[in-house]
Amino acid sequence: MKIVTDISQWIKLRKSLPKDKSIGVVMTMGTLHKGHLSLVEKSKKENDITIVTIFLNPTQFNNQSDFINYPKTWEEDINLLENAEVDFLLAPLKEDIYPDNYNYQLSEKSLSKILCGKSRPGHFDGVLTIVMKLLQLTQADKAYFGEKDFQQLYLIKEMAKAFFVPTEIIGCPIIRESDGLAFSSRNLRLSKKGREKAKIFAELIKLNKPLKQIEKQLEQNYIKVDYLEEHFERRFAAAFIEEVRLIDNFSLEEVEA
Amino acid sequence: MKIVTDISQWIKLRKSLPKDKSIGVVMTMGTLHKGHLSLVEKSKKENDITIVTIFLNPTQFNNQSDFINYPKTWEEDINLLENAEVDFLLAPLKEDIYPDNYNYQLSEKSLSKILCGKSRPGHFDGVLTIVMKLLQLTQADKAYFGEKDFQQLYLIKEMAKAFFVPTEIIGCPIIRESDGLAFSSRNLRLSKKGREKAKIFAELIKLNKPLKQIEKQLEQNYIKVDYLEEHFERRFAAAFIEEVRLIDNFSLEEVEA
Repeated sequence: MKIVTDISQWIKLRKSLPKDKSIGVVMTMGTLHKGHLSLVEKSKKENDITIVTIFLNPTQFNNQSDFINYPKTWEEDINLLENAEVDFLLAPLKEDIYPDNYNYQLSEKSLSKILCGKSRPGHFDGVLTIVMKLLQLTQADKAYFGEKDFQQLYLIKEMAKAFFVPTEIIGCPIIRESDGLAFSSRNLRLSKKGREKAKIFAELIKLNKPLKQIEKQLEQNYIKVDYLEEHFERRFAAAFIEEVRLIDNFSLEEVEA
Repeated sequence: MKIVTDISQWIKLRKSLPKDKSIGVVMTMGTLHKGHLSLVEKSKKENDITIVTIFLNPTQFNNQSDFINYPKTWEEDINLLENAEVDFLLAPLKEDIYPDNYNYQLSEKSLSKILCGKSRPGHFDGVLTIVMKLLQLTQADKAYFGEKDFQQLYLIKEMAKAFFVPTEIIGCPIIRESDGLAFSSRNLRLSKKGREKAKIFAELIKLNKPLKQIEKQLEQNYIKVDYLEEHFERRFAAAFIEEVRLIDNFSLEEVEA
C-alpha cells in the first residue's frame, strides 16, 4: 500500500494511474473498524484499484470537544489497510485540504436541516464540502459509504446527482457487533459501563413500541436521547452516553415484534 | 457541430469521447458576441475538442426582470458557433440542471460579498453552483472565462482550487467595441441613446481622477452608479443605463493620464 500525505504528490500520482483501470474509494476519518473494512472489501471486489482516505475533517464538527476527543489509531489503521490489500492511502493535511480557509462551502437547504443536521448545525455543510473535495481528488468510479450514517449517505448521493459528479455513490449495510451495537469509531470512547448502556440503546430503539415509550425507557437507563424519529420508512436514533454521541437507524421492517 | 440538449444523452456522449484528446469548454448564457468568440478561438487553439455550453442560469439572477429581459438570440448563436467550428454545443434544460430544485448550493463566504455580490445577493452562489455542475458535466482540461466578469473569474478560479477540480481555469482579456465599451449581451437592450451613454460610461471610468469625482460626472450624465471601487490594483465599475446593468474593470496601470 502506498501512503500519500502530500496533496500535490497525490494529484500527480492520480494522473499517472492507468485510465482503463476502475477505481473505488472509501472515505474515512480513521479509527477504522469492521464497518469501514466491509466497504473496503466491497471496493476491492468491484474495482481494479482501491483508495482509502483518512482525514479527520474539522469542518464537520460543531462540537470542539467531540473533535478533540475523536479517537485516533493511525498505526492500527495502516495495519488493517495493509492486510486488506488497499492500494493507496490518501491522508492529507488540514492546511492542504482547506487552502481557502473553508471560504468555499457546499450546502443543502432541506433534508440537511433535520435529524443530525438539526442537532449539529453546520455538520452537513462540512460533510458535503469535504466529500466533494475528495471526490474531485480521487476521481473514482465508485465511492462506498455506510448506511450507519444514513442521512449523510442520502445527502451525498443526492449531491453527486445534483452536481453530475461522475462517481457512483454506493450505500452499504450497517455492520454490528455481536450484541447488536453498530460499529462506530466513537464506541472506543465508552467505559465498560458506557458500553453496556450502548448495548441497551441498540436494543431499545428496535422495539416495536410507540417512540415516546421507547424514549422514556432510554431516559430510565440514563441514556440522553437526542432524537428518535421515523422518516422514509426508517427509524433514526441519536443519543448521548457518557457525553459520547451515538447514532443508529434501520428500516421499519426490521422493528422487532 | 453536434447540438445536445438532453443531459443523459450528453453524459453518454461525454463518456464516449476519446480519453487522449484534450478538451476545452466555454460556458455562456447565449446571446454570443465577440467576447465569447475570443474564448472559443483560444479553446480551439489549445485543445483537440471544444465544447460550448449555453444555459441561461436562473439562479444567478437576483432580479426577475433582468432574467426575463436577458436577450436571447438562439439561431444567431448557433450560426456563430458553427462558423467558429465548435465541436459540441451543450444547451441543457433548467429542469435537468436543477433536479434538486437548487437545494444543493455552492457558496463563498468572503470575496463574493463585495462589488457585484453586494449589489446582487445570491448572485455568486448561483454562478458557482452552475459552474461546478458544468465543470462536472464537461470534464474539460481547460475552461475559459472572460475578464469582464473579473470577480466571477477570480471566484471560479479559487473554487476550482479549493475543490481540486482537475479543470484548469483560464482568464481571457476583455474584448471591446471600437468605442471602448466592453462587449456584453446586455448591450443589446440599450436604445441608441442608451448606447451613447454606455460609451461615456466606458470613457469616464478610465479617467485618472478621484473616484468621487468620476462618480459625480457619471451622475451628471444620468448614469446611475452601482459601484466604483478599487481592489487588488484594479478599478471596478457597475452602473445602470436605462435600467440595464453594465459592468467593467481594468488594471490601474491602464488608467488614462
